[in-house]
Amino acid sequence: MSDAWLNKINWSADGLIPVIAQDEKSGKVLMVAWMNREAVKLTVETGEAVYWSRSRKKIWHKGEESGHVQKVKAIYLDCDEDVILLAIEQIGGIACHTGRQSCFFNKLEGDQWVVVTPIIKDPTEIYKQ
Amino acid sequence: MSDAWLNKINWSADGLIPVIAQDEKSGKVLMVAWMNREAVKLTVETGEAVYWSRSRKKIWHKGEESGHVQKVKAIYLDCDEDVILLAIEQIGGIACHTGRQSCFFNKLEGDQWVVVTPIIKDPTEIYKQ
Repeated sequence: MSDAWLNKINWSADGLIPVIAQDEKSGKVLMVAWMNREAVKLTVETGEAVYWSRSRKKIWHKGEESGHVQKVKAIYLDCDEDVILLAIEQIGGIACHTGRQSCFFNKLEGDQWVVVTPIIKDPTEIYKQ
Repeated sequence: MSDAWLNKINWSADGLIPVIAQDEKSGKVLMVAWMNREAVKLTVETGEAVYWSRSRKKIWHKGEESGHVQKVKAIYLDCDEDVILLAIEQIGGIACHTGRQSCFFNKLEGDQWVVVTPIIKDPTEIYKQ
């Protein structure tokens, strides 16, 4: 497999690209994370979303602790080649580290951010050692 | 209207936040662009998506040239407060400057990016002076 497709990606100055994970069935936008070149390659090779953790500065196989892996069904690149969109199946139905389905649970109502979706599973249960 | 909600946003080092525009009805992810503080404020005030153009370094009222404005139906912020998701109605049905519905028209098939969605309107028609 040639790496030409990886070279088409328009990486940021720090060698990353933002990635949207969207539920393949419902269309729900679940989360945004970042990938470096290695993470994109691993995602394609394994068929599961592998990100670059900017805080921990390491490769992060989504679900490695929680079991909430993301099975990748399709990978799209935008017109500027600087954003990736993944169509995924979210194992466990929880993408967010807060225990919610989606990370986008704060909705602007007037001049307030209001939490509009429930916690499905307590994070202390998800991430217990 | 207090600005406290704007202060909750976790801006990047250059004062920006990435914004996903998603079609409210179909759930289709249409594009990703960036907003600065002023753009977020203008988006809320006008009810139409206003971005910060990183290439032109100016406020960009989406659709100002093309007529393809985005009517904002809801605004979400993610768990890390560093990505915004807009639920929008895309006027004209075209979000991409290439004349396609969505900017995410390159699909990875094997080791090739393949264009999988058609041009609805020729960009030279959209952006004629």
